[in-house]
Amino acid sequence: MNKRLLHTPEGVRDIYSLECEKKLVLQNRLHHRLKTYGYHDIQTPGFEYFDVFSREVGTIASRELFKFFDRDGNTLVLRPDFTPSIARSAAKYYMEETKPIRMCYMGNTFINSLNYQGRLKETTQLGAELLGDPSVEADAEMIALIIELLLDAGLKEFQVSVGQIDFFKGLLEESGMDEEHELTLRELISNKNHFGIEELLLTLPMEEDVRQAFIRMPELFGSVSMLEEAEKLVKNERSANAILRLRKVYEVLCIYGLSDYVSFDLGMVSKYNYYTGVIFQAYTYGTGEAIVKGGRYDSLLSRFGKDFAATGFAVVVDQLMNALSRQKIDIPVAADGILILYEDPGRAAAIRLAGQLRKDGRSVELVKKLSGEHSADYEAFAKENGHGEILDVMPDGTYLCRKLSSEAQAENRTDAEEGQA
Amino acid sequence: MNKRLLHTPEGVRDIYSLECEKKLVLQNRLHHRLKTYGYHDIQTPGFEYFDVFSREVGTIASRELFKFFDRDGNTLVLRPDFTPSIARSAAKYYMEETKPIRMCYMGNTFINSLNYQGRLKETTQLGAELLGDPSVEADAEMIALIIELLLDAGLKEFQVSVGQIDFFKGLLEESGMDEEHELTLRELISNKNHFGIEELLLTLPMEEDVRQAFIRMPELFGSVSMLEEAEKLVKNERSANAILRLRKVYEVLCIYGLSDYVSFDLGMVSKYNYYTGVIFQAYTYGTGEAIVKGGRYDSLLSRFGKDFAATGFAVVVDQLMNALSRQKIDIPVAADGILILYEDPGRAAAIRLAGQLRKDGRSVELVKKLSGEHSADYEAFAKENGHGEILDVMPDGTYLCRKLSSEAQAENRTDAEEGQA
Repeated sequence: MNKRLLHTPEGVRDIYSLECEKKLVLQNRLHHRLKTYGYHDIQTPGFEYFDVFSREVGTIASRELFKFFDRDGNTLVLRPDFTPSIARSAAKYYMEETKPIRMCYMGNTFINSLNYQGRLKETTQLGAELLGDPSVEADAEMIALIIELLLDAGLKEFQVSVGQIDFFKGLLEESGMDEEHELTLRELISNKNHFGIEELLLTLPMEEDVRQAFIRMPELFGSVSMLEEAEKLVKNERSANAILRLRKVYEVLCIYGLSDYVSFDLGMVSKYNYYTGVIFQAYTYGTGEAIVKGGRYDSLLSRFGKDFAATGFAVVVDQLMNALSRQKIDIPVAADGILILYEDPGRAAAIRLAGQLRKDGRSVELVKKLSGEHSADYEAFAKENGHGEILDVMPDGTYLCRKLSSEAQAENRTDAEEGQA
Repeated sequence: MNKRLLHTPEGVRDIYSLECEKKLVLQNRLHHRLKTYGYHDIQTPGFEYFDVFSREVGTIASRELFKFFDRDGNTLVLRPDFTPSIARSAAKYYMEETKPIRMCYMGNTFINSLNYQGRLKETTQLGAELLGDPSVEADAEMIALIIELLLDAGLKEFQVSVGQIDFFKGLLEESGMDEEHELTLRELISNKNHFGIEELLLTLPMEEDVRQAFIRMPELFGSVSMLEEAEKLVKNERSANAILRLRKVYEVLCIYGLSDYVSFDLGMVSKYNYYTGVIFQAYTYGTGEAIVKGGRYDSLLSRFGKDFAATGFAVVVDQLMNALSRQKIDIPVAADGILILYEDPGRAAAIRLAGQLRKDGRSVELVKKLSGEHSADYEAFAKENGHGEILDVMPDGTYLCRKLSSEAQAENRTDAEEGQA
């Protein structure tokens, strides 16, 4: 056998056994929360035409997309991000709608990452998009929902960091910087590279107060009081309004009673170009990367022909699972399954017993013993498979019950109705 | 705007609104049934190395795979079928296991179908694999589980058609036919093309009783009594044992009390080459294609280095949804959501009211009215979005409740605890 046959491609993996069951339990819990906020499920295709994720849309860079061709030679792309697909869907199916649309999704995204060794190329994302609502309250709903999702997941210590891309864009307008330098500056601010920022800005002509505001950007994070400091740094209207917007969002989050989990970061400049206003990322211990990413993207739907405001976010389920595991926060899964063992003469009784128990919603695994095997031989197997007891069916249809507690005890039970065929 | 931007590639589609919610309700119901049989979830990557789905494995033909390359030039394939991936996983993670392994999955598969206009290229499949159990009881468990899944889905009229590929293979051995003719014959039998079968067989040297048995194959379907007839047609041991196996499986299904849903079809010769024994397909009205496909594949795991018997099946969720819809069998989804409307002065009260109701597990959509709008303007919107009532929050924190029954009534309610901020 070719040994490589057992391998999965770089950046993708199998998730099985307990880890997979925990993941599904977590996903269901998060999905339930999305439903309590009135979001409606949508599934978009696993691949789309390249144009949906093209450079103009402002998602992941083209070189990090998985691309292939259809039979007519059109370029197809594995979905790297749900937002453009949902923007496309909303424009297509709700072209005439004027009231807000709430959509949620759960599925896998694929990014052919270039530089990051060991980084997952396929991740499960679960998220929400609130379309057609330009309000402060919509921004706040996103952040409140993120916080409730993370609390539901079991996290206790986390922060949702909130930024406003217009703070940066207002300064950019003032500075008159070209796109190439903007991209370099974004990168430097993202990496909180003070020295690099200063060096770059000294080569560019702009008013000194604008230069100083850019230089200070990487430090503009912290609690709501930081916003006062930021206000003093800018005089252009766009940047000032950006700060005002954050104050208003904070006000609403106080009503939700969730402001403790919020901090602000004006130096947050996402690499997703479609963001237009309030943006956010959630962080916790045990994972360096954001476990939630999102923000406002008021111009994206117009690319698909519908002028509609929008905001949304995605929870990266794999990152969240990592964080929970490193923080030793358990996701409880059922361990009350029943293993029924039988030999040929007890077969009918065993099958009927399993049927009864399954009708009661119990999880029952039915295994025919090989000759010479005893129920004790199945203890480790039963525990590994989440069973709480072993029922060993005898040829006469009665069964022995072995509870799998700390000390396994064998207890003889006869149940005329259930144990007899 | 480029109109094509709104389109999805041929053979894939968006699923949204009520259809999507129904699909998820159905999936959850089916998943729960898999759990009552003791199956453990597994998720394999959306794409794998080509070798996992190569011709030798015996899945979909290479020309119907979606292929692309990784950065090192290896060919990757979008998963067309879960079975080879799960066989690979089982061999990788359970190399030393000797006891049976039960795995279940839910996810999308991708087939770049060649000829079938309008056929879906991305379908959701949910299935189970029972590995390491070569017994008749394992075959029967698969069929019983399929029947229970389809009953859970709400279907009343359906059939699980059970075949045994060894019936055909026994005759093939006797006939001494080469592989090329075998493929042609499989195709002809699959299409129940009597004339074509006769024409082909007349050109090939074989004993007359073998030829007659092949010619009769497309008619060998029906209830268990058909097996008697089939027994008379064959004298080779492999074919005879195939029939004996089916009789034994039937015996077990009678114990399950599910034999009414079973019929037999010895002319079933799957295009999946990995099948080795009992195979099955479920059919119902409203869809021409099988809604469930599966069978025994005792040799597949050895390709991945583990000698382990196996059987399994996949439910094609999209086909099942089609069938349910055409048979007018409803999948009920919740319609008891609450739409809360407010204007700025009632904002805090509205947010707190939403929080209370969400704590009780209710689905609540929170919408700020535009100036001049009334709650009556939101009736159609509320109904479309699955709401059972509208709560219109007043500036003083009280609210009007409008129930969305056949006749909408406005009822004035004041709730000091819930309605007051």
